[in-house]
Amino acid sequence: MSSSTGNKFKVQIFGQSHSEAIGVVIDSVPAGIRLDAEFIGKFMKRRAPGKNKLSTPRKEADIPEIISGLVDGVTCGAPVCAVIRNTNVHSSDYDFLKDHPRPSHSDYPAYIKYSGFNDIRGGGQFSGRLTAPLCFAGAVAMQILKDKGVEIKAHVYSVNGVYDEPFNPLSVQPDDLTEKEIPVLNDEKGRLMAEKITLARQAGDSVGGIIECAVSGVPAGLGDPMFDGIENIISRNVFAVPAVKGIEFGSGFSSSEKLGSENNDNYIIKDGKIVTETNNSGGIAGGITTGMPVIFRAAVKPTASIAKKQRTVSLSEMQETDLEIKGRHDPCIAIRAVPVIEACAAITFADLMI
Amino acid sequence: MSSSTGNKFKVQIFGQSHSEAIGVVIDSVPAGIRLDAEFIGKFMKRRAPGKNKLSTPRKEADIPEIISGLVDGVTCGAPVCAVIRNTNVHSSDYDFLKDHPRPSHSDYPAYIKYSGFNDIRGGGQFSGRLTAPLCFAGAVAMQILKDKGVEIKAHVYSVNGVYDEPFNPLSVQPDDLTEKEIPVLNDEKGRLMAEKITLARQAGDSVGGIIECAVSGVPAGLGDPMFDGIENIISRNVFAVPAVKGIEFGSGFSSSEKLGSENNDNYIIKDGKIVTETNNSGGIAGGITTGMPVIFRAAVKPTASIAKKQRTVSLSEMQETDLEIKGRHDPCIAIRAVPVIEACAAITFADLMI
Amino acid sequence: MSSSTGNKFKVQIFGQSHSEAIGVVIDSVPAGIRLDAEFIGKFMKRRAPGKNKLSTPRKEADIPEIISGLVDGVTCGAPVCAVIRNTNVHSSDYDFLKDHPRPSHSDYPAYIKYSGFNDIRGGGQFSGRLTAPLCFAGAVAMQILKDKGVEIKAHVYSVNGVYDEPFNPLSVQPDDLTEKEIPVLNDEKGRLMAEKITLARQAGDSVGGIIECAVSGVPAGLGDPMFDGIENIISRNVFAVPAVKGIEFGSGFSSSEKLGSENNDNYIIKDGKIVTETNNSGGIAGGITTGMPVIFRAAVKPTASIAKKQRTVSLSEMQETDLEIKGRHDPCIAIRAVPVIEACAAITFADLMI
Amino acid sequence: MSSSTGNKFKVQIFGQSHSEAIGVVIDSVPAGIRLDAEFIGKFMKRRAPGKNKLSTPRKEADIPEIISGLVDGVTCGAPVCAVIRNTNVHSSDYDFLKDHPRPSHSDYPAYIKYSGFNDIRGGGQFSGRLTAPLCFAGAVAMQILKDKGVEIKAHVYSVNGVYDEPFNPLSVQPDDLTEKEIPVLNDEKGRLMAEKITLARQAGDSVGGIIECAVSGVPAGLGDPMFDGIENIISRNVFAVPAVKGIEFGSGFSSSEKLGSENNDNYIIKDGKIVTETNNSGGIAGGITTGMPVIFRAAVKPTASIAKKQRTVSLSEMQETDLEIKGRHDPCIAIRAVPVIEACAAITFADLMI
Repeated sequence: MSSSTGNKFKVQIFGQSHSEAIGVVIDSVPAGIRLDAEFIGKFMKRRAPGKNKLSTPRKEADIPEIISGLVDGVTCGAPVCAVIRNTNVHSSDYDFLKDHPRPSHSDYPAYIKYSGFNDIRGGGQFSGRLTAPLCFAGAVAMQILKDKGVEIKAHVYSVNGVYDEPFNPLSVQPDDLTEKEIPVLNDEKGRLMAEKITLARQAGDSVGGIIECAVSGVPAGLGDPMFDGIENIISRNVFAVPAVKGIEFGSGFSSSEKLGSENNDNYIIKDGKIVTETNNSGGIAGGITTGMPVIFRAAVKPTASIAKKQRTVSLSEMQETDLEIKGRHDPCIAIRAVPVIEACAAITFADLMI
Repeated sequence: MSSSTGNKFKVQIFGQSHSEAIGVVIDSVPAGIRLDAEFIGKFMKRRAPGKNKLSTPRKEADIPEIISGLVDGVTCGAPVCAVIRNTNVHSSDYDFLKDHPRPSHSDYPAYIKYSGFNDIRGGGQFSGRLTAPLCFAGAVAMQILKDKGVEIKAHVYSVNGVYDEPFNPLSVQPDDLTEKEIPVLNDEKGRLMAEKITLARQAGDSVGGIIECAVSGVPAGLGDPMFDGIENIISRNVFAVPAVKGIEFGSGFSSSEKLGSENNDNYIIKDGKIVTETNNSGGIAGGITTGMPVIFRAAVKPTASIAKKQRTVSLSEMQETDLEIKGRHDPCIAIRAVPVIEACAAITFADLMI
Repeated sequence: MSSSTGNKFKVQIFGQSHSEAIGVVIDSVPAGIRLDAEFIGKFMKRRAPGKNKLSTPRKEADIPEIISGLVDGVTCGAPVCAVIRNTNVHSSDYDFLKDHPRPSHSDYPAYIKYSGFNDIRGGGQFSGRLTAPLCFAGAVAMQILKDKGVEIKAHVYSVNGVYDEPFNPLSVQPDDLTEKEIPVLNDEKGRLMAEKITLARQAGDSVGGIIECAVSGVPAGLGDPMFDGIENIISRNVFAVPAVKGIEFGSGFSSSEKLGSENNDNYIIKDGKIVTETNNSGGIAGGITTGMPVIFRAAVKPTASIAKKQRTVSLSEMQETDLEIKGRHDPCIAIRAVPVIEACAAITFADLMI
Repeated sequence: MSSSTGNKFKVQIFGQSHSEAIGVVIDSVPAGIRLDAEFIGKFMKRRAPGKNKLSTPRKEADIPEIISGLVDGVTCGAPVCAVIRNTNVHSSDYDFLKDHPRPSHSDYPAYIKYSGFNDIRGGGQFSGRLTAPLCFAGAVAMQILKDKGVEIKAHVYSVNGVYDEPFNPLSVQPDDLTEKEIPVLNDEKGRLMAEKITLARQAGDSVGGIIECAVSGVPAGLGDPMFDGIENIISRNVFAVPAVKGIEFGSGFSSSEKLGSENNDNYIIKDGKIVTETNNSGGIAGGITTGMPVIFRAAVKPTASIAKKQRTVSLSEMQETDLEIKGRHDPCIAIRAVPVIEACAAITFADLMI
C-alpha cells in the first residue's frame, strides 16, 4: 500500500524523480468522457516549474502521453494510464547525498525503510515531481466535476507570514487567479509575498505558506460517518503532497479560541433554499457536506532543500558533517502546490460523485 | 464504507447514541495477548462523562462486554467484539429536533444523506458517544504498543485561547497527566482553562480547544509514501472524532511563517544514535517516521450543542425559527477528547506495527 | 484482514463457536428499510441445525438481537449489528483436541498461524456456526434485492454421487423448495440422497455434495473487469463457507470437454429483449452480467468431523496416534449449507446494487 | 474498482488490446531485489502467442519496458511500472462487431455497462492480451517467492476430454514442462490433446481444457479466516483470467462424491515433520495452508472466438443475424493460459509472504 487512493475513481501514482518516467493509472474513469487535452494541459502547466523566477528553473516538458483507457479520445471504461517521461535529469552527483541525508527530507527515513535501496536521485518517489501525475488525475477529475456543477479553486493564503484575504466562505468569488504570478485575491499582498520569496532565494533560504481551497457547488449529503467523512478523505489525499504539514476546515484552528455561539452556523432560508448564515464548518458537519462551499487550508512548510549550509551526518561513518545542497529548488513550494491541492480536492470529490 | 479503518488492526465501530448498544469489532488482534481489563477500564474511564462539573452530567456505566475473540481472557486470533449497552437514554423529546436541525451538528446533512431516516436521538451514529468503543480499540492497541516500547500521551494544549506549554518534541516528559481534572503540563494554565469553561457553561455557551498528542518510542522507517504516510493515516483516523476541525504535525501551520533554515531539522549524533537537533517535522518526513517522537495537534471546535438560543429552520415548513437545545452537554468537549485522540494514534500505529 | 467483505454493503463477521456470542456488523445498509424480522427469522431457520435426523442434534436458539442500526425497526444508515448468543456450549473436553488436530479441519493450520492460541472449542472462528451471522447478513441483503426484482434460490444438486436435475439456466423455476427435508427439484433423487446420508451417519461417516444456486432478475452490465468480476466476488464470498472446495459458473468444468460451437451462447431476441439461446456462461461474460440468470455450483466436501477412528499426531509429543471425534455433527453439511450459499450470493449482489 | 488486486504486493493492470500500450503497476515490490530480466522474459514468452500452430499467429514483441521502481536494475521500494506497447494492431474492421456482439464474449455486457463506449477492438480491456502484464507481475512475484523456497508449476490437465495425469499432490515432480509444445506430464496424452486442438482448428472451432497448478514449499499457517482464506484469494485472482469458468482445490468437485473417511487427510509424522498422508485438502484447511503443496485446477472454456458461423443480434436494429468472426484466435486458449494461472498463484502468495 502507498501510492494509491480512492475507491471508484482510483488513482495509482508511479515513478521517481529520475526514473524513465512517472505517471498515473486511474481506475476507473466513467466511460463516454471526451478528455479535454487543452484543459488538462493548461491545468498541468500551472504546476510546472520554470515559469518565473519565483520557482525552480528546472524545465520539464511534462506532456502526458495517455497510453490506455481511450477510444478516439473518449474514455471507454478501461483504466486510463498517463505517462510523463523524465527527460531533464542529472543523476551524476547523488553519491554524496546517498550517505548524507538532507534535513527534513525523506532521505533518512526512506534509507531506513528501504534498507538503503531507496532512490535518492532527486528525492526518488518522494519528489514533488510526483505531483505532476497527481495533477493529471486531478484535471480529469475536475472535468468530470465541472459537468456536475462542482468547481474547485485555490489561492495562496499566506507566504512567510504575509496573509492574503480569505475566500468568502459563503460564496467563492469567480475571479480567475490562474494567470497571476502568485494566485492571490489581493494583489498588494501578492507583491509582498513575492518580495519575501525573492529575499529568501537570495539568502539561499526558503519560505513556507498556506494554501486555501474552496469546492463550490457540492450538494449536501456527501461523505460517510467517522473514518470516511469529507475531512478524513481530503486530509488523506492532501497529506500526499510533499511539504504539507497541517490542514484545517472552515474556522479550523481558530475555532479553538471561539465560543460555540460565535462558531455555530445558524440555518436560514435564502432564495427558497436552506443555507447557513456563516460557514465556520467549512461546508462539512459530522463529516457530511452541508451544501455550503467546502473550505480548507493546507500549511506548506518551507522547501526543505536550501542552499545555505546545514548540519547532517554521514550514515556510513556515523559522524556529523556540513552539508551544502546544490541544484535547482523552489524557494517557496507553496506557489506551485496550488493546483496540486486543487487536484487533491478534485480526486476526492470525483471518487464520491461518480 | 464509513465506520471502519485499518488493514491489519481493523476497527469497525457500530451503534448510535440511543440504540440498544454501541461497540466495536477489531479484526484482527494478534493471538496470545491477555487483555488487561483494568488498563482498558481505566483508559475508558478517562473519556467517560460525569466525572466533574466541567463535563456533561450524563452518566454512562460504559463497561464493555467482550463477546468474542478471547479464550480465557487471551486473544485467539478471532475478531474481538466489545459491546457497551446504552442504558441512560431519554428518547422522548426528539420530535422537535427531527424537524429543526441544530446548527453545526450533523443533523441537516444526515437528514439529506439518509432521506430523513437518520437517527436524530442524541446525534445518532454521529454522537460523541461512539468514541467510547473507539477508546476500547485504542486501549487494546496501546497494550500491544506498550510491549513494543511505544507510548502515547496527549494533553489539552489550549482552551478558548489559553495555551498550555507544548510537549518537548525531542523527548516527551513522563509525567502522568491522567489524574488531573484538565490534563495540562502547566497547572496554572489548567486553572485558567477551567475558568473559561465554567464561564462558558454559566452563559449557556461552549468553548473550543486544541489537543496535543505525542507518540514516543516509534522506530524510524514506518509509514508508506504518498497516500499512506503517517500524516495521512493519523489524519484519517483523528477526523473521525466529532468536533475535530484541524490537524497539524510538528511545527505545522506555524512552519508557514518560517524560513527553511529555521524549520529544517538537522541530523546530529547523540548517544551513538542518529537523531534530529530539533523536531519541527513532528517525527515524520516524506510520510515516514524519523525515529523522533511523532507530535501532532488537533483543533477541537466549541461543542455545537449550546443552551443559548439559536436560529434554525423547520425542514417541513421551510421557515426560520428559534431553537433552544435542552439536555446534557459538555461545555468543552476538548477535555474528554484527550484519550480519544490518543486512541486514534494508538490504532494507527498498532495497524502499522503488528 | 479476514472476516469482512464488501465495499458498500460491508459485512464484518465475529465470534467463535463457543465465545459468548457470534454476530455481524453490516456497514452500511441503506437507510429507510423496515427489516422484516419474520423473513429473516425464517431464512435463518433454514440453516439452523436440529431440524431432522439428517443434521446435527445441536440445538441453537439462534435468535439474532439487533443492537444497532435501527430506529423503530427501520434502518437509519448506521451500521446494523446483530448478535447471537452462544448458549448450548460444552467446552469441557477440548484438552485432547488441542493437542491432536482433527484431519481436514482448521485445527493444525490454525495452531501454526496463531502459535497455539487459536480457539479449538467447537472449531473456534472456523466453525460452521459462523455461517449463522452470515445468513443474517444474507437475509438483509435478500430483502433489499427482492425490492429490486432479484431472487436467489439454491438446491442440493448432488449428495455422494446422487444427482438432482439442474436448474433450467434460462428461467429458474419458481417452486418453493424450502419446506423440503432436502431441497431438491426431483423428490425421488432427494429420497436417494437421504438414504446415502443415513447410511453414512450409521457408519460414523459423512458424505459430500454439490449446491447449485441461481440468481434471477439481475440486470445486464453488473460487475467490473478482471479482479472484480462477478465470478471473482462470488467465489471470494462462497469460499468463506467451511467445506466448500470448488466453484463453477454456467457449464463450468464441463465446458472444458466441449467445443466452442457447443458452449457459446448465441444471442437471440425474445419478447423484444436480447437474451441468449443457451446459458452456458452462467449469466456472466467477461466478468459482467449478461442479464441471464447467474448460475453457479459449489462443491461441498464431506463433513470433516466423523465418528470413525482416524489417525493424527500429538503436537506436544510428536507421535502418531488414533483419534475418535465425539460430539454432534452433520453427516452431510451440504444440506444446511444451501441457505448459506444463497446468503453469499445475496451479499455479493447487494454490494453491487445498492 | 476492477483491475487491481492485492494489499502488499498490489497489482494494477491497465490497457486494452488495441490501446497504445498495456501494462501493470506493482505497488509495492520490496526494495533491494535485482529483477532478473532473463527470467521475466522467458516466463512471459511462455504466454506469448505465435509460437506454434496450436496458438494464434498474432505476433507480439511483448517486451516490457520498466519505466519506474528501479535504480540500476534493483527495486527501490517505489511502484514498479512495466509498459508493453501494442504494435501489431488492425483496428479497421470493428464497426460490424460494435453492433453485433460475439456470443460468450464480453461484448454485450460491456456494451450495456459502458453505454456503448466500451472498446470493442480486439476485446478491449477484456482481451486475453491483458494477461501479458499479469504475467510480468507474476514473474516478479515468482522471483520473490523462489528466494523463500516457494515454487509454482502448472500443466495442462485436460483438453476437450483428454486427461493428463494429475500432479502427485504430496510432492510435485520437478520436471521442467516449459519446453513442451503442450506442458503435460504424460506426453502421449499431450499428443492426443494436440490432435483434438488441430481437429477443432480445422473445423473453425475451439476446445476447452483444465489447468492444474501446484504451489510447493509454502509454509503452514498462511491465509486468513473466512473471506481472506487462500481459496478465496486464489479464486479472486484466477477468475481474472478470461475464459476461466471454474476452480477447485484438492479433491474439489470429486470430494462431493466421497465419504469423509475417504476424503480426510490423516496427519502422520515423516522425516520428523507433521504432514498429511493424503492431500485431498489441496494444502488448505479452514482457508489456511497446511504446509502441503497447494493444488488447484482451473476450468478454461473453449475460446469464444470461433470461425464457424454463429447467431447474434444487431443491437441497433434489434434483429437476429448471422455472425462470422474473422481474425486470429487460439483454438485452445488453455495452452497459453498455463503461465497465466501460475502468475495468479504467484501474486497471491507474494502478497501474503512479503
